[in-house]
Amino acid sequence: MSQKSNSNSVGLVEPKDFLFRSKQGFVLESGEILPELNVRYETYGDFKGGLAPVVWICCPLTTDAHAAGLHVEGDPKSLGWWDALIGPGKPVNTDKFFVVCSNILGGCKGTTGPSSIDPRTGKPYASKFPRITIGDMVNAQKKLAEHLEIKKLFAVIGGSMGGFQAITWALEYPDFVERCAIIASGTRLSAQALGFEIVGRKIILDDEKFNGGEYTEQSKPSNGLANARKMAHITYLSAESMQSRFDSAENMPKDPEKFYTGFTLENYLNHQGEKFVNRFDANSYLHLTWAMDNFNLEEKYGSLENAVSLAKAEFLCVHLSSDWLFTPEESYKLTFALLNKKKIVSSVELNTNLGHDGFLLEVKDLGALLSRFLDIRSPETLDKDYTRQAFSSKKDIKRISAFIPEKASILDIGCGDGSLLHALWKQKKATGVGLDRSFNGVLHCMDFNVPVIQEDLDKKGLSKIADDSFDFVIFNRTLQETQNPRDVLLEILRIGKQAIVTFPNFANWMVRKSLAFNGNMPMNRFLPYEWYNTPNIHLFSLKDFIALCEKEGILIKTLKFVNSSILSKILTLLGFKNLGAEQIVAIICRRDPV
Amino acid sequence: MSQKSNSNSVGLVEPKDFLFRSKQGFVLESGEILPELNVRYETYGDFKGGLAPVVWICCPLTTDAHAAGLHVEGDPKSLGWWDALIGPGKPVNTDKFFVVCSNILGGCKGTTGPSSIDPRTGKPYASKFPRITIGDMVNAQKKLAEHLEIKKLFAVIGGSMGGFQAITWALEYPDFVERCAIIASGTRLSAQALGFEIVGRKIILDDEKFNGGEYTEQSKPSNGLANARKMAHITYLSAESMQSRFDSAENMPKDPEKFYTGFTLENYLNHQGEKFVNRFDANSYLHLTWAMDNFNLEEKYGSLENAVSLAKAEFLCVHLSSDWLFTPEESYKLTFALLNKKKIVSSVELNTNLGHDGFLLEVKDLGALLSRFLDIRSPETLDKDYTRQAFSSKKDIKRISAFIPEKASILDIGCGDGSLLHALWKQKKATGVGLDRSFNGVLHCMDFNVPVIQEDLDKKGLSKIADDSFDFVIFNRTLQETQNPRDVLLEILRIGKQAIVTFPNFANWMVRKSLAFNGNMPMNRFLPYEWYNTPNIHLFSLKDFIALCEKEGILIKTLKFVNSSILSKILTLLGFKNLGAEQIVAIICRRDPV
Repeated sequence: MSQKSNSNSVGLVEPKDFLFRSKQGFVLESGEILPELNVRYETYGDFKGGLAPVVWICCPLTTDAHAAGLHVEGDPKSLGWWDALIGPGKPVNTDKFFVVCSNILGGCKGTTGPSSIDPRTGKPYASKFPRITIGDMVNAQKKLAEHLEIKKLFAVIGGSMGGFQAITWALEYPDFVERCAIIASGTRLSAQALGFEIVGRKIILDDEKFNGGEYTEQSKPSNGLANARKMAHITYLSAESMQSRFDSAENMPKDPEKFYTGFTLENYLNHQGEKFVNRFDANSYLHLTWAMDNFNLEEKYGSLENAVSLAKAEFLCVHLSSDWLFTPEESYKLTFALLNKKKIVSSVELNTNLGHDGFLLEVKDLGALLSRFLDIRSPETLDKDYTRQAFSSKKDIKRISAFIPEKASILDIGCGDGSLLHALWKQKKATGVGLDRSFNGVLHCMDFNVPVIQEDLDKKGLSKIADDSFDFVIFNRTLQETQNPRDVLLEILRIGKQAIVTFPNFANWMVRKSLAFNGNMPMNRFLPYEWYNTPNIHLFSLKDFIALCEKEGILIKTLKFVNSSILSKILTLLGFKNLGAEQIVAIICRRDPV
Repeated sequence: MSQKSNSNSVGLVEPKDFLFRSKQGFVLESGEILPELNVRYETYGDFKGGLAPVVWICCPLTTDAHAAGLHVEGDPKSLGWWDALIGPGKPVNTDKFFVVCSNILGGCKGTTGPSSIDPRTGKPYASKFPRITIGDMVNAQKKLAEHLEIKKLFAVIGGSMGGFQAITWALEYPDFVERCAIIASGTRLSAQALGFEIVGRKIILDDEKFNGGEYTEQSKPSNGLANARKMAHITYLSAESMQSRFDSAENMPKDPEKFYTGFTLENYLNHQGEKFVNRFDANSYLHLTWAMDNFNLEEKYGSLENAVSLAKAEFLCVHLSSDWLFTPEESYKLTFALLNKKKIVSSVELNTNLGHDGFLLEVKDLGALLSRFLDIRSPETLDKDYTRQAFSSKKDIKRISAFIPEKASILDIGCGDGSLLHALWKQKKATGVGLDRSFNGVLHCMDFNVPVIQEDLDKKGLSKIADDSFDFVIFNRTLQETQNPRDVLLEILRIGKQAIVTFPNFANWMVRKSLAFNGNMPMNRFLPYEWYNTPNIHLFSLKDFIALCEKEGILIKTLKFVNSSILSKILTLLGFKNLGAEQIVAIICRRDPV
């Protein structure tokens, strides 16, 4: 139905309806039954007779199926809510993918919900609409997928409550979902977010015009719905963005009679409330938030581990740095549950001060991630297309590859662009995941199709990774950059059976010369920084390293030396290793493996 | 009125009333008039015929004048809201102080408010009650103070909205207030906090039973008030404390019909709402939040600097680490405005996961601060009473004191227990403030009556301190512990005319020997840590330091060397300073002072 315009828009689109009818009706997870189910949806791109891979978009709480394109030619106000991400040549590329987005069960945008007509009575369900779950929403979407004769989803993508649907897709229909991107979401709501939801519903229920759910268009609980929305809207923004936006804004005159502050902020919130009342139904709001609040993977599947064990998809978890509604912690919780169950998962932070709303607005970075996550090029093409200077040199790779057996599992800490993991995968069929603190590092890893978790080791640590998760942990040239190198060493030997650690030797003759003869902090090719801006904050020598390993019950299985100067090579050959070695590669393991 | 019990309680207390009447009535800042003003208050301790110093407690939003003691003998439920802090031998020691706490103007606890009878009509003010300000609250308290024949307040203490009153006391009556403690508060509400207030008021105003403020006890806006309170209550807790409290709690059965989740959290919030409705008046809530929302020192006085310039008191600003309603940033804003206007100010963080509510609950740490802030011992007694091992040795002090002229102003970064500043104050009448990251450091500084700002240099930096604020910045033995030593050096020379920097010399012969001959990282009396847990993350030599100073336009006015080994002394004497010096004391300034 989509018409291509000249630009990279899917152009004018029209929603479609699919009416599902069967003898037993549409059965909800509660056992209750909807006699029939209408699903309103839009599609973008060409299905190519069933050959195009399908990308399925799951709606957050209050958007509708109109994710991309225009409803009214030339009217930018009619643009879809994720139009920046979906279209020809866009991150969710409609030249390659057939994209489907449907409105949520229980909503008020065409898919069956409380304001729909109950065919048994000829009147709106209103207060009679049964309680629904996120699972019900996904089951309704599955009916639509079957109707469209979709055999498999190449990817499911969902933000916020859409993320709850996306993970549910991957758990309930594991063979149907190949990739699953969960954005600004998690495994359940936090207690704080739940608290606001509970109060929000009560505000609506207490509006006299709510009338137990049996209200009319002429007399509906607009005040309650508007106030609930205003409160919720604050939780979608960050404190920082609110401060910068409203602190400098020009205020209107106060009206103390009405307790009206005149602050731009008050007008803004009122406007948000009014807009919402005009486009949303109070009963739907109650049902959707109810479904969201009762979503709890741990409860449904016994434990988070049980839950994620079911999945077969590859995952991308994206969180937003300033999101306090769906916090980074919740996203990490899902990430590490998946990782610990040996699922393929990448986890990324969008650096933004926009709060939760950032998942609708930070389209540039989010697009960069999604375009890579949806990349369907072959490994060979990936290699050829990667033209940047690789993070790991061929020498580096060769040196480490020598220790790695076939099909080993690997965690590469400080993995940079993932070139090492990519090479180990090609050479040894090794599987693994990288850890890096930079967003660009993550993007480059994804260019190589290497799973990666964006994390600052000094901030988050490795404590959420299960014991013995990896055959090898590679810690290449960053041990001296960590705040607690001893703790890190013990941690990597907890989560890895062995570790490959490389570090500069601070007792190399060049360092000794610099200090002993010149009296200043060394700068050379393996310590290339000024003392005041070096990331190397815990320098140590080979001898120091050996002493620490002995003290902590760490067995050094192998030591290799990387020397570029001839003197270094000679000294090392003569046995003066602590004097000669420039850089050291150590293979270590626990002395008494558990 | 207070009767001493055996314990450290003020015992049974009774509220008292003061009725202020005058020809022109009580004039509000708006110009509107209250024909008469009743102030309900309690007092604790003995005024001793006007000789006892007075501590004035300012109420937060919804508490009343009952801050300490019991209203009903033997009934712990009748305990005052800050009883843990106020009493004989307690931090606000009623053996020494005469303590007064009055209910707020506009409240509903006895002091004139919207539910009081308007003497002109014989009916409650209700919707006719004029809008009030924080200034009006303080002016009403001032009338009470005059009535009690109080000539001066030794200290004003206020938390949350009480903090707004406390700072207002200090600005509006500068000669009346000697010390001012502002706890979990700031100079105005953040945009986020304002947003919740605005929505909260709208929820009440929209309750049909509110009836424009003209409601009765039989038909009052309980739903609206309860919902506003529940929302506000979430903002008083931290996300973390909510998670840990409600995540593990046992839930009740759900009632989907009523959209009742059964979560302990929902019951808790409902309980909070109900309790509040029973003890608070909706009109009062509107008026008090209105006053709080419109409190803005910048607006009232032209700028924050103008505002704080008026004060003559000594200040203590306390914030709570997990408080997102009155954030640490807001407290720092006030702190640095005071500091930049040469006011005496200490600023401390209570480490808590209790959120804003912590100011009522973290009574142990808060008590430790208040007891010190209210300490009225003489400097001699302070010295005698201080029995701990002092942070700065007599040698240290002597070495630095030699450079300090009489009456210099000093910032001591990493000040420890403040013993150096205390000594400089005694020896040179130097004034100053310390900076330290530890709470214990702050307590010890306060033991010495040394103003101190608790701050982690690596996290907050010095950017909020004005240029040329101090004659000397002392940076004793911590430069090598900072993450960006160069930036720190430049910053301390921006805020100080000169700086005294002391650091260990990493090119001392002992270090060289350790590295050059032994091949390991040095450990000695001035570098006493293992390489993997040392706080010294940017080691450097005298030569390195000199090179950096030259590069950055820093003039080294004086260099002194601190050596304990004889060899060090000899080498230094012979001119081999970079080889000999163990520790270095450098006096530096900008080469081209601005």
